Amino acid sequence: MTGLQKLRERTGELSDLESVQMLLGWDQLVMMPEEGAHARSEQLGTLARLNHERARDEQLGEWLAEAEDTELDELERDIVRVARRDWDRARRVPEELAAELARAAVEGQQRWQAAREANDFAMFAPALERNVQLAREYGGRVAGDGLTPYEGLLGDYDFGLRADELRRLFGALADALPPLVPEAERCSPAHTLDVPVASQQRAVAGTLARLGVDRSSWRVDISAHPFTAWIGRGDTRVTTRYSDGNVESLLSSLHEYGHALYERQIDPALTRTNLGRGTSMSIHESQSKLWENHVARNAAFGELLAGELDAAGFPIAPAELHATMVGVERSLIRVSADALTYPLHIILRFELELALVEGELTVADLPGAWREGVRRLLGLEVPSDALGSLQDVHWGAGSFGYFPSYALGCLIAAQLWEALERELGPREEDLRRGEVEPIKAWLGERVHRYGRRLDTTELVERATGAPLSIDAFMRFVEPLARPRP
Amino acid sequence: MTGLQKLRERTGELSDLESVQMLLGWDQLVMMPEEGAHARSEQLGTLARLNHERARDEQLGEWLAEAEDTELDELERDIVRVARRDWDRARRVPEELAAELARAAVEGQQRWQAAREANDFAMFAPALERNVQLAREYGGRVAGDGLTPYEGLLGDYDFGLRADELRRLFGALADALPPLVPEAERCSPAHTLDVPVASQQRAVAGTLARLGVDRSSWRVDISAHPFTAWIGRGDTRVTTRYSDGNVESLLSSLHEYGHALYERQIDPALTRTNLGRGTSMSIHESQSKLWENHVARNAAFGELLAGELDAAGFPIAPAELHATMVGVERSLIRVSADALTYPLHIILRFELELALVEGELTVADLPGAWREGVRRLLGLEVPSDALGSLQDVHWGAGSFGYFPSYALGCLIAAQLWEALERELGPREEDLRRGEVEPIKAWLGERVHRYGRRLDTTELVERATGAPLSIDAFMRFVEPLARPRP
Repeated sequence: MTGLQKLRERTGELSDLESVQMLLGWDQLVMMPEEGAHARSEQLGTLARLNHERARDEQLGEWLAEAEDTELDELERDIVRVARRDWDRARRVPEELAAELARAAVEGQQRWQAAREANDFAMFAPALERNVQLAREYGGRVAGDGLTPYEGLLGDYDFGLRADELRRLFGALADALPPLVPEAERCSPAHTLDVPVASQQRAVAGTLARLGVDRSSWRVDISAHPFTAWIGRGDTRVTTRYSDGNVESLLSSLHEYGHALYERQIDPALTRTNLGRGTSMSIHESQSKLWENHVARNAAFGELLAGELDAAGFPIAPAELHATMVGVERSLIRVSADALTYPLHIILRFELELALVEGELTVADLPGAWREGVRRLLGLEVPSDALGSLQDVHWGAGSFGYFPSYALGCLIAAQLWEALERELGPREEDLRRGEVEPIKAWLGERVHRYGRRLDTTELVERATGAPLSIDAFMRFVEPLARPRP
Repeated sequence: MTGLQKLRERTGELSDLESVQMLLGWDQLVMMPEEGAHARSEQLGTLARLNHERARDEQLGEWLAEAEDTELDELERDIVRVARRDWDRARRVPEELAAELARAAVEGQQRWQAAREANDFAMFAPALERNVQLAREYGGRVAGDGLTPYEGLLGDYDFGLRADELRRLFGALADALPPLVPEAERCSPAHTLDVPVASQQRAVAGTLARLGVDRSSWRVDISAHPFTAWIGRGDTRVTTRYSDGNVESLLSSLHEYGHALYERQIDPALTRTNLGRGTSMSIHESQSKLWENHVARNAAFGELLAGELDAAGFPIAPAELHATMVGVERSLIRVSADALTYPLHIILRFELELALVEGELTVADLPGAWREGVRRLLGLEVPSDALGSLQDVHWGAGSFGYFPSYALGCLIAAQLWEALERELGPREEDLRRGEVEPIKAWLGERVHRYGRRLDTTELVERATGAPLSIDAFMRFVEPLARPRP
């Protein structure tokens, strides 16, 4: 076998191991009996170790060198280029550091959970301190020439992003969004909708069926937090959750559908290569946000959703449903934030984690900085750390550099949607009838099929003809601050 | 790390990989959307290759040699002894043969399926011929000194079994069982019970709950063929199937419960070692048969089952239910055979696969030999190969030496049950009340806790105080051929 063949065999193996890890994760959250948790963590630990060992294997370097000296076609060049990047990054992390990061992530998450329940930041502080130091060390090692440790961390989720670019985008958003909030709150309905869970379930099933979700290659289940697992071609699994008194399940099932569709529409030729999955967290999030913000929150699609709720035994005026779905109300909690204020929660976290990793903010000063940031960005007072800096699991689990993708996803979704409507024409008429095939085809062609062949920045520029900016998102949110007819 | 420590780390890894393979298999049969099948076979292939590669690893030999030179406690000695055995067997199979066996198993299974649907043995014959030759080669290589190829094959399922011992046991059964059949058929009810599926489901759930099956560490699902998966400590999953017009679901859920309980009661100290699972297929089958034949088919337990059916909306006299569950009716199909004639189906398959592997029967002569055997053992005429030699998947999938465990399980179950009642006293009173804790405790102590520390023959002799024989089983079936009050 040639170096390229061996390399491709290994990428197939690593791709299978990732799929298996995803299946174990899905099973854990959806099917596993609770007492299976300990055995599951052993199994996941073994798979992660095997994956890491085989991704940084000495031999891979030899195969890469041989492949790089060979005449390659375009696809092979991308496979080798991305394999080189992944291998170099993996090789920069010593085994002991990788093991220490894994241990600290588990222990940090446990400390975080206990601290949040006790509303006691001091209980969490030592674990967070350790995670920040480890993240700094890890980020510094994987960063490569000319990049900062924080940019090294970003590279795990969004290769090629620069901290300055994020500062610029998020700084502009932090200026532009807050002035819209008071007016948007005044335009929002005072009451939530009290849709029974059974009606929500039927409406979600009916809506997803219209988008092409069928039992032959999809599962739709319930879990404590909605998520999507792509186990392999022809095996996509989304989850949602239901609670009385809101329509979150409608928004979140469209959100997860966006993640799922991305993975399903990647070029089949990339299956079991190192290119056969979504290219970055921000592009992934742009796909979920596109279906959540620009389809589910579209007034025309709201007519269809109202029809589904009606058929499910909950008659409602389309305008009332739509008003609820685009309603704005400031909140202390990120995961329940509306479409307008959501990015403000992310900007806060980006500012703080950047300052932590760069050493400009101490762990001890974090709760105060959090309260100050919430005051500045949202105009709210934080009554407790449980509702403040202890609300998210990410830092406890050692994830730094992940948060920006949530807000970037909102920006990219808006920019893609404008490009799509520019080319296909306004979508209202189609959405009213539930016709989404042109949208799916456009996304498949411009975004999905590339897999990891294009990184975030290049993908956005090619698909939309312009560099990433906040403009399209601002045009999406400005109407939320205008009285509706 | 010492050789022993490295060895134990590797056995932990291999044990995790086996659990993961089992989870993927469970998911495929219970949860997976059908179009995920191709990706799943890739994932399972990758795991099998990794497992095989790491089980026959050169380094393992070095660690073993070092460990064998060390002062070891009793448990460590067993770990090293069984690891040596497994490694030696794995090393005797060249990579190319292992790969060819895997390919032939997949292709043979496909050919078998097509041939069975077409009722065309000739379509299957070339694949079977290839599987027989490969089995002979594989068996010869793994057999070790003084053993035949068929005994080498047996070793994968039941280490230490000898073909002569099987000939002796099965020969005695082939003489003793057929004379009982006509009388047993005369004593059996003429009609099956028409229990609605919904009532069966409620009765199965109620019965399993009495045996300790709860949601914190069990799952009970539906699949096309009932099976049990042990994913890890605290995570046991049984399946059953339901069809109108029979009570198979009651028998099969007790059967699967027996498999599950065995794995659950293995000494926790053996978790993630190479000893931490059931020791052989025949002991495993003895555990399922014990709960199926000696609990579910016990008249006293039948009273409890009738009560569950009654509570599930299907009132029935306990004696009528019991008569149905112990009814005998010869059939051409192994999987629907009753407690008395089931071993006759296995004896036929043992005789034929032994003759195939030993070269005393050609593939071309198999259908005729099958018909002759069914005539001799069951007194039935085989109208088609689909109802004859094409009915089981095993040979198509390359499994030779597996069938005997099904009949051995019946014999061992009967012998264990007699020993248990000798020590604990008759179980009727307890079973009538659903009290099974003493049975569970006795099985845990005498059978389950050992895991792979004892092989089949030694385990049976220690637990029952006698070598394996057909006597206890004959005492179990003889009453089936006597008129019931």
